[in-house]
Amino acid sequence: MKLTVDEIAGLVGGTVHGDGSTVITGVNGLEEAAPGDLVFVRESRYLPLLEQSKASAVLIGAVPEGCAIPAIVVGMPDLAFAQVLQHCDAEQTHHPVGVHESAHVHPGAQLGANVAVAAGAVVEDEARLGDGVVLYSGAYVGRGAQLGAGTIVYPNAVIRERCQLGERCVIHAGAVIGSDGFGFAPLGGRWAKIPQVGIVVLGDDVEVGSCTCIDRATFGETVVGAGTKIDNLVMVGHNVRIGEHCVIAGTVGIAGSARIGNHVRVGASAGIKGHLEIGDNATVAARAGVVTSVEPGRTVSGFPAIDHAEHRRVMVGQRRVPELLRRVKQLERKIAELEEKHDG
Amino acid sequence: MKLTVDEIAGLVGGTVHGDGSTVITGVNGLEEAAPGDLVFVRESRYLPLLEQSKASAVLIGAVPEGCAIPAIVVGMPDLAFAQVLQHCDAEQTHHPVGVHESAHVHPGAQLGANVAVAAGAVVEDEARLGDGVVLYSGAYVGRGAQLGAGTIVYPNAVIRERCQLGERCVIHAGAVIGSDGFGFAPLGGRWAKIPQVGIVVLGDDVEVGSCTCIDRATFGETVVGAGTKIDNLVMVGHNVRIGEHCVIAGTVGIAGSARIGNHVRVGASAGIKGHLEIGDNATVAARAGVVTSVEPGRTVSGFPAIDHAEHRRVMVGQRRVPELLRRVKQLERKIAELEEKHDG
Amino acid sequence: MKLTVDEIAGLVGGTVHGDGSTVITGVNGLEEAAPGDLVFVRESRYLPLLEQSKASAVLIGAVPEGCAIPAIVVGMPDLAFAQVLQHCDAEQTHHPVGVHESAHVHPGAQLGANVAVAAGAVVEDEARLGDGVVLYSGAYVGRGAQLGAGTIVYPNAVIRERCQLGERCVIHAGAVIGSDGFGFAPLGGRWAKIPQVGIVVLGDDVEVGSCTCIDRATFGETVVGAGTKIDNLVMVGHNVRIGEHCVIAGTVGIAGSARIGNHVRVGASAGIKGHLEIGDNATVAARAGVVTSVEPGRTVSGFPAIDHAEHRRVMVGQRRVPELLRRVKQLERKIAELEEKHDG
Repeated sequence: MKLTVDEIAGLVGGTVHGDGSTVITGVNGLEEAAPGDLVFVRESRYLPLLEQSKASAVLIGAVPEGCAIPAIVVGMPDLAFAQVLQHCDAEQTHHPVGVHESAHVHPGAQLGANVAVAAGAVVEDEARLGDGVVLYSGAYVGRGAQLGAGTIVYPNAVIRERCQLGERCVIHAGAVIGSDGFGFAPLGGRWAKIPQVGIVVLGDDVEVGSCTCIDRATFGETVVGAGTKIDNLVMVGHNVRIGEHCVIAGTVGIAGSARIGNHVRVGASAGIKGHLEIGDNATVAARAGVVTSVEPGRTVSGFPAIDHAEHRRVMVGQRRVPELLRRVKQLERKIAELEEKHDG
Repeated sequence: MKLTVDEIAGLVGGTVHGDGSTVITGVNGLEEAAPGDLVFVRESRYLPLLEQSKASAVLIGAVPEGCAIPAIVVGMPDLAFAQVLQHCDAEQTHHPVGVHESAHVHPGAQLGANVAVAAGAVVEDEARLGDGVVLYSGAYVGRGAQLGAGTIVYPNAVIRERCQLGERCVIHAGAVIGSDGFGFAPLGGRWAKIPQVGIVVLGDDVEVGSCTCIDRATFGETVVGAGTKIDNLVMVGHNVRIGEHCVIAGTVGIAGSARIGNHVRVGASAGIKGHLEIGDNATVAARAGVVTSVEPGRTVSGFPAIDHAEHRRVMVGQRRVPELLRRVKQLERKIAELEEKHDG
Repeated sequence: MKLTVDEIAGLVGGTVHGDGSTVITGVNGLEEAAPGDLVFVRESRYLPLLEQSKASAVLIGAVPEGCAIPAIVVGMPDLAFAQVLQHCDAEQTHHPVGVHESAHVHPGAQLGANVAVAAGAVVEDEARLGDGVVLYSGAYVGRGAQLGAGTIVYPNAVIRERCQLGERCVIHAGAVIGSDGFGFAPLGGRWAKIPQVGIVVLGDDVEVGSCTCIDRATFGETVVGAGTKIDNLVMVGHNVRIGEHCVIAGTVGIAGSARIGNHVRVGASAGIKGHLEIGDNATVAARAGVVTSVEPGRTVSGFPAIDHAEHRRVMVGQRRVPELLRRVKQLERKIAELEEKHDG
């Protein structure tokens, strides 16, 4: 990246205060910034950090008094900053291009225009890749799988047979879409495998984090709705249905056949029991263990997860149990004395 | 899949009521079914769903009154359904066949009859693959590793050197068998690595989920007994010994040198401390954190995990602490009044 | 391994008691040992196990009375045993050598002396691998990434573009370094991706477990300090900074921008909220959920994590709540009786 303050102001539609010819070579946080970096300030409480920052320019809502570096004034500094990040990203990103000679593309696969299949990536028979799909090295697309236009699969991620991904999905390195669901039936002291003949269907614009596993349905479909974003190391069991535009943080576990609405937020390391329903716009707090269905719009926390406000009272109460034990013991002693006086 | 109701009845040994020539093209749940699908009903409480289902035929224990679609009557509808799933699965599954030209098989490796090594899979020196072993693309079998007949390794799973897998094991995509155990000794303010020279041994019919990691022993063996099924994203530490026919749900963690008996069930996201013993037929509930050994046949839950029945009482009690605080405060006030009257 | 007791004594600087010509072919635990195995005894309480052990020799601090097998006496038997493990390990380990013909090394990559790139491994343009770097099969090194001398990357691990690894790092199979951080901004009912333009920087001697994911910074760096060891299936969010010589056990989650000091220990399945600080030498107990910063040297446990000693009292108290409920009910009854007597 190498842009003047004036050029960045043009990019984000801002007004320059100070030297617009200052050259910016990177972006950073207020504390980490070095000369050449652009920073942003969203709230006035960060102004003291700005004064000490080594940055060369700032994106900000209003120029503070005595601002020592060039400032670009914009309505929403964080969104403007995201635009600058987009610029950096476009500049830095070099997705693979074309089908590499060491890739294995089965002749029965169908590839759209401008598909990239990097060294060592594999596309099996009957798979269909839409225009502009990018497969990084070691990515695997199983027989009959379908990837919508613009979908990116990072190194060593696996899409198993017949699964269907929408357009512009991002599947991060090491993620696994469509492994067998965990289905076994007890049979004479052993576990007999229940064949998992279903698939996984991801809507458009779904992002799946590294080493996240979304299991195929026993039969029918495991579904993740359009626009939903899933972080790393998340487990999504067979036949789960997740709605649209949800965010699911890292190391969450969602057991088989759970149904999650639209715009649901699930915090890190939370767990959701199988066959439950989580209503639209609900929030599951980090580390919550949900064992009963959650109504739309509710926030739950704790294990077993309950209404968040009640859980806070329970957590406060929990720390006061040792004190309660002492107070009850004291009460018992006093009562005994009073009883003795009465009977005496 | 394309079978008539009569053909399916023949497959599962059932009796047809209604039009046996109806063509079935898929399997599904009662609610998701479309025309052409076969469904099953295990209990009479699902009969109302059957009435509304769009399915074209049903596997059931007895024909309900007014059944609108062809029915196949069998003793155990769920097992019969699993048989039909097996049929679908056999039809849909196309495991790789033969050794692909882009696979790397070291000349010092020994391959049994009908072994498949797909594009980009790697088999190192001295590895031994039994008859019918299937390695999907990107699967890695390290030097001297042994895979019993019929074992399947899905894409990008890793079996490190010298590990031993039984017959008919299933290793899902991204699983890692035989990484170094986590062993370090403090040495002058740093952590010195303790070499991990042991191996992992899996019995026959073991299934290992995606991105599950089973570490090799520091010395000796980390063992998973025959018939045990492990779900996705499970961590099994070095020198752990798991018995036969256990089921271990997703995102469980089992720390080093824990010993788990036969027929043990471990619920999702549970954790088991190192060096403990979990007796045969014990059950560890989901999200339990086990810090003391568990006797055979016991069920434990909570953190620290205790007897399940006691834990339920503790969980109920926990929610009543805020109420207890109020009641104790009230008691203290009343006692003070009584004491005053006495002394007054 | 095939060494006499005398040769092993030479290796570890110990004194032989008994037959120094005894041949040792393996190492094992006291209970698992078979003839030919060497064992070690660190504390006298293990002497009864030694008497029953089938081992052929023992590393020990002092020869016990009536010791039936040859003994090698050393000051610190566990460290001496680690030295023997090192010997076994060196003997058993066969890292790949040279650049395999089926590896893909971009002509724009720079390789130091004695670099190994195994079958199917990929090194992209502008990547720089120091002397003696070893890439196992399926390992991926993205464009412009840098790996210090002696670093080992096991099969199918992924180092994404521009990330920087120090010398002698060990990246286990399936680990992912430098995936996008989980950053999205709400924008008209959808989630807009915040480009993740930063990198991951690992210091020297960092070890990263299998399927562990360390996300790249939104901008700037996600950092893991020299000598820190991370176990399997750990999630490290974007912009996290971990100090030197920490140990982080399996299935831990560390959310974005948390700052962890030096010599910190984090127990299995613990979680650390974003933007917190964990001071030097602090300890986070297994399964703790840390939601407030932790001062240097402190030990915290529970969820929300509090001082470990207090948490123990809380946990004991928690089990006594059902009893407290009964005692308070009894008190209320007695008070009511006393009040009646007074008023009566």
